[in-house]
Amino acid sequence: MAKIGKRSRPSAVVPKGFRDYFGHEVTQRQAVLNQISGVYDLYGFSALESSAIETVDALGKFLPDLDRPNEGVFAWEEDKKWLALRYDLTAPLARVYAQFQGQLPLPYRRYAMGPVWRNEKPGIGRYRQFYQCDADTIGSSSIGADVEICTMLCDSLEAVGIERNDYIVKINNRKILNGIMEVVGLLDGDNPDINSIKRGIVLRAIDKFDRLGIEGVKELLGDGRKDESGDFSKGAELSSEQIGIIIGFVKAKKDSTAQTLQALSELVKGSAIGLTGVEELLTLLELSELQGYASNRIQLDPSVVRGLGYYTGPVYEAELTFEVRDEFGIKRQFGSVAGGGRYDDLVKRFTGQEVPATGVSIGVDRLLVALHSKNVLSLNSVGPVIVTVMDRSRLFSYQAMASELRSAGIRAEVYLGNPKSFGNQLKYADKRNSPVAIIEGSDEAARGVIQLKDLVLGSKIAESVTHEEWRSQPAQREVLRGNLIEEVLKIISKK
Amino acid sequence: MAKIGKRSRPSAVVPKGFRDYFGHEVTQRQAVLNQISGVYDLYGFSALESSAIETVDALGKFLPDLDRPNEGVFAWEEDKKWLALRYDLTAPLARVYAQFQGQLPLPYRRYAMGPVWRNEKPGIGRYRQFYQCDADTIGSSSIGADVEICTMLCDSLEAVGIERNDYIVKINNRKILNGIMEVVGLLDGDNPDINSIKRGIVLRAIDKFDRLGIEGVKELLGDGRKDESGDFSKGAELSSEQIGIIIGFVKAKKDSTAQTLQALSELVKGSAIGLTGVEELLTLLELSELQGYASNRIQLDPSVVRGLGYYTGPVYEAELTFEVRDEFGIKRQFGSVAGGGRYDDLVKRFTGQEVPATGVSIGVDRLLVALHSKNVLSLNSVGPVIVTVMDRSRLFSYQAMASELRSAGIRAEVYLGNPKSFGNQLKYADKRNSPVAIIEGSDEAARGVIQLKDLVLGSKIAESVTHEEWRSQPAQREVLRGNLIEEVLKIISKK
Repeated sequence: MAKIGKRSRPSAVVPKGFRDYFGHEVTQRQAVLNQISGVYDLYGFSALESSAIETVDALGKFLPDLDRPNEGVFAWEEDKKWLALRYDLTAPLARVYAQFQGQLPLPYRRYAMGPVWRNEKPGIGRYRQFYQCDADTIGSSSIGADVEICTMLCDSLEAVGIERNDYIVKINNRKILNGIMEVVGLLDGDNPDINSIKRGIVLRAIDKFDRLGIEGVKELLGDGRKDESGDFSKGAELSSEQIGIIIGFVKAKKDSTAQTLQALSELVKGSAIGLTGVEELLTLLELSELQGYASNRIQLDPSVVRGLGYYTGPVYEAELTFEVRDEFGIKRQFGSVAGGGRYDDLVKRFTGQEVPATGVSIGVDRLLVALHSKNVLSLNSVGPVIVTVMDRSRLFSYQAMASELRSAGIRAEVYLGNPKSFGNQLKYADKRNSPVAIIEGSDEAARGVIQLKDLVLGSKIAESVTHEEWRSQPAQREVLRGNLIEEVLKIISKK
Repeated sequence: MAKIGKRSRPSAVVPKGFRDYFGHEVTQRQAVLNQISGVYDLYGFSALESSAIETVDALGKFLPDLDRPNEGVFAWEEDKKWLALRYDLTAPLARVYAQFQGQLPLPYRRYAMGPVWRNEKPGIGRYRQFYQCDADTIGSSSIGADVEICTMLCDSLEAVGIERNDYIVKINNRKILNGIMEVVGLLDGDNPDINSIKRGIVLRAIDKFDRLGIEGVKELLGDGRKDESGDFSKGAELSSEQIGIIIGFVKAKKDSTAQTLQALSELVKGSAIGLTGVEELLTLLELSELQGYASNRIQLDPSVVRGLGYYTGPVYEAELTFEVRDEFGIKRQFGSVAGGGRYDDLVKRFTGQEVPATGVSIGVDRLLVALHSKNVLSLNSVGPVIVTVMDRSRLFSYQAMASELRSAGIRAEVYLGNPKSFGNQLKYADKRNSPVAIIEGSDEAARGVIQLKDLVLGSKIAESVTHEEWRSQPAQREVLRGNLIEEVLKIISKK
């Protein structure tokens, strides 16, 4: 290898907006994904891992958050074609379904979990690579398919350790919103292109109800809104009468589901599509309840609309009802941990034929923050047993001990740094959060014994002591070499 | 959504060289990765998932297979910086270690598993996105670290179901090769840049011994070689005496390890680095054997050199010793399922300081082909129990049955396609490889019974029969609705 001068050294930094995940950040996420995929599998969904790279053409222009700066994908040109990293798992699903529809079962139930990439302005806690975990049913127009997604979402949240009554799946139906749009004169079924931009502004305004409150939504429906940073968002410029009706829809939630459905029916009176939406909602709620998913789990909420343009029927969103604090103890405001809905037009882009579809996406990173906040997942993981190196020539013996421990299912390793400083070996054990350190010098070896050190007691003073001081501590015991496994298990099982 | 005319429809195709993975292709790989990471974890390695995207600068120019056309990465420019998808898991590890070395334990043992991307010419069975599964120890110069990687590799292969004696971990040491280079006059320790290109050609020539045989290697060491396609590879233009010594090294394997080590010592006589290499090999083999990993698992093989330029000491390679056939029954020739070695210079690119490191990478896709060939993994997976829809108004009842089955841990789903054609429902069950179909029409409901159909017997004639014919078959039984779980389990457990 050629010598590399100082000047040509690359900087060791991850690109802006990206990050690395260490240790339990990786294993806990995988464990949560395994639990969720276990539920999806039980429901008959089968796994799909599509290529991370798609043609830009196939991905299309369905990115959420159209009003965000620098929205987009990571793309590059190759042989005059543009390729890009997927920005979600739904657009690739539509491509896969269109490409393989002859071979796939119909309906096609699939789940997918993996990273997606967004070429957005990075911000605190906002990364340009993150995980999604989706389940979708393609080819079923039955409300039964939506019911299934909602009950499966409940089961998934409970499977990872969110207790019942600590979450709520809120549902609504885009057809009701379309009905409202007809009532206020923003939607003409025969000319759907007219006012489509205004409808988009209304949709995203309602979607921000959680964050901005009713006054913020009103501003966005009217003349527009200036946010805290001074940025101005254009409004839909609706009349106060129009705004009144839309706000009435957002606030239509009453004490009982029956009353809310009644209120919605009245709001969309005269709109066929609006009334169909109310009926679908009723069916979804009834079928859920008959399976035991009552309103403490699946609940009607007219303020839930989901920001994406492509939904066409039921929409749903899972919210956590407890306070979530991040690792710094700071209260985290986050909307939903999962959301989805029915999108009957997505495959049509490829095939020209409308294919009914419905699905949900779980935001895995948010879910993990919530699970840590609830102490379902620990932020500390127990490290391996460390076999220290007192005598380099006895490496074979240390490796044999580690090997024995592993055969008994105990995580173990030999210290492989420079063994000269015993303090460094203990610092290492401390950094690894090891429960036990094992010492075998030549004197111990001659007597057929080993020293076991309970590190949970001893690690705090490890930085200063010498080997001799260390030996005199009560947390250390001399045991027979032959009793290695048994004695280590005694210490570990105390934890 | 705007109407999309036929002309503007995108094609539903995955980009060239990429593919999608369906059902058990995904779940079996995940299961294998979980088994391997279980072993890595037992050895005290901790997980790392680095960003998929790195700066081109940080990735550097360490791509393997330098003589392949279109070698490279997928890269794009952003704010005057070039970003790229990682092409392996080692280059990002070096970046992570250099970036976080203050916070990481020393030595740092980490494992990583995930996709990597190569911008290469796609070919049959050669994809531009594939999985790697690596384990590396950074910051240990001890041969103990290399021993650990080799025994861990054995344990990993056995954990996924490769039986002992069905694989062999072959080891060698680059220092011996460097000794040979000194002996033939291609390496001068004081001026390592001289002849570095020739040494690269020699290295890659030896690495192709498996595929090209001794004659092919000789051509590459001499005037060059024309392959079957007519492409010419430049040779190292060595003298016949030089070639003789190098071939002697490649063929130095004798009946016993002791004899081989003796032969190697003689070949590198006079080269200090060469003799150090022989000593390290001896230590590695002794320490392995003392832990019970004898030459039926870890074996010296002088023909193993690994093609990558950056190795500096022990190198290792796992080979399967049984015949592997792919899903078409065609014999698959593949070199190794795993390989690695010591690379002490990789972190130096960033920090200027040499950091000893050693590690292994398992080729997951190849391993899966081998596991299928050995029938350790099945190519068929059992599908869910299908609750058919005889009466749309009883959807609540069908969903309740599916829900009950799932609560008992049985994979189940309600048919959610158009229920009009019962034949289509059975075709669907067949496509899903379902073990059981459940029927409840209004008459059954009135009598409190259901029909259970054993589909393993019945699926073959499903395409033509009517509901009535189907009912008369012996594979179908009427059972009490209350005995649903018990009766389904009877059929499933027969399989």
